[in-house]
Amino acid sequence: MDPVIILVEPQLGENIGMAARAMANFGVTDLRLVRPRDGWPSEKARNAASRADHVIGKTLKFETVEEAVADLDFVYATTARQRDMLKTVRHPVEAAQILRTTVNTGGKVGIMFGRERWGLNNDEVALANEILTLPVDPDFSSLNIAQAVLIICYEWRMSGSDREAALPFETPDVPRASKEDMVRLFDHFEEALDEVGFFRPPEKRQHMVQNLRTILQKGDWAEQEVRTLRGVVAALQRRHERSRQ
Amino acid sequence: MDPVIILVEPQLGENIGMAARAMANFGVTDLRLVRPRDGWPSEKARNAASRADHVIGKTLKFETVEEAVADLDFVYATTARQRDMLKTVRHPVEAAQILRTTVNTGGKVGIMFGRERWGLNNDEVALANEILTLPVDPDFSSLNIAQAVLIICYEWRMSGSDREAALPFETPDVPRASKEDMVRLFDHFEEALDEVGFFRPPEKRQHMVQNLRTILQKGDWAEQEVRTLRGVVAALQRRHERSRQ
Repeated sequence: MDPVIILVEPQLGENIGMAARAMANFGVTDLRLVRPRDGWPSEKARNAASRADHVIGKTLKFETVEEAVADLDFVYATTARQRDMLKTVRHPVEAAQILRTTVNTGGKVGIMFGRERWGLNNDEVALANEILTLPVDPDFSSLNIAQAVLIICYEWRMSGSDREAALPFETPDVPRASKEDMVRLFDHFEEALDEVGFFRPPEKRQHMVQNLRTILQKGDWAEQEVRTLRGVVAALQRRHERSRQ
Repeated sequence: MDPVIILVEPQLGENIGMAARAMANFGVTDLRLVRPRDGWPSEKARNAASRADHVIGKTLKFETVEEAVADLDFVYATTARQRDMLKTVRHPVEAAQILRTTVNTGGKVGIMFGRERWGLNNDEVALANEILTLPVDPDFSSLNIAQAVLIICYEWRMSGSDREAALPFETPDVPRASKEDMVRLFDHFEEALDEVGFFRPPEKRQHMVQNLRTILQKGDWAEQEVRTLRGVVAALQRRHERSRQ
């Protein structure tokens, strides 16, 4: 059970579609509209949703906010400005955790978003359990609806899974080079550099070797990467041998 | 010092403007464009930025990705699909923390975003230190550029509230190698390896170069360490020249 996203009197079909797409990006699919200005269904919305048809297709339209939230147990009102109400104000991270806990205990939850121009009115905010606001720059706080929906659905998704598991793909899982591999790489490098008289003067050799080993150590390389590097050194060495003959 | 946002070959001015607005929402203001299709400056971008003129006004345009990242010390490549590279893949939360730590130790950081249609190519990804991807629904993973920028700038802003625990002692504070230093190291290595015919067969060269750059990238080396490595390559090269005579 994911949260229901409620857009109150959205004006532009494009914004409804972009909100639907933002929801779909993070696996949220229940969209409700209260008195969309240009009516519903909307071609502009479907186009802007760019293939989030599974969201657009089951979007519900309501005449009042009260009806739109009637079956929900816990609702957030999103707002960018402070209201003269004694309501708890939450950051998206905390809000997502509270919604997750409510859902996990059998509750049905929703998040209300207001009009493009001036958001939700105080009567609508008053219907919500708590207020949700975003940590925007106070000097540039106007987010469009789709972007507010995006961030909140992103936090919802994160609250549900450990982060790595939520990623579409992960760092390739390849065996790390062992210290033995690394020491072979060190020896190989140092042999090649001795051949070309790199470590001069001799009394500096130990310190130069320590530096080089520190540098090579930083790579935290995979086995196959260390093999590649040894191939590099070998290639440069073979050239010497060839050219010596 | 906030991260630099780099858009590679953005097609639509609207997307550039929406990205600028998303940056401004979270206090990020340095935008760089590589070969924007419709040129720069762009009226469409300025309109879509809806008053994020402080971002649009100082946006820089570059001809190549290498130039766009030359002065940066640590760069993320954002991508929605897995690449055949042994690069570390980070979630936005971890990436923001890594960027914050780098900035706090004097590093200059950036985040690259690809084209609307097909993102960054592998050569561009190979230039980055690590890969950044978003925890989207694998069945609906296409985010537009502005929304990817929005979420990452949001996490950047959130990472600022974290405090680093005081350590008994710290990593020596030495200047990190810039991307320019790294690209010189890449070129130097590849030149030396071309001399010895390492990149065979020719059609494999590009992929071998990408692997080698990925390997060298992992060191996160200081300027002086990259100088040492170039000395290593030069020593091995000089030997060839001498022995060729």
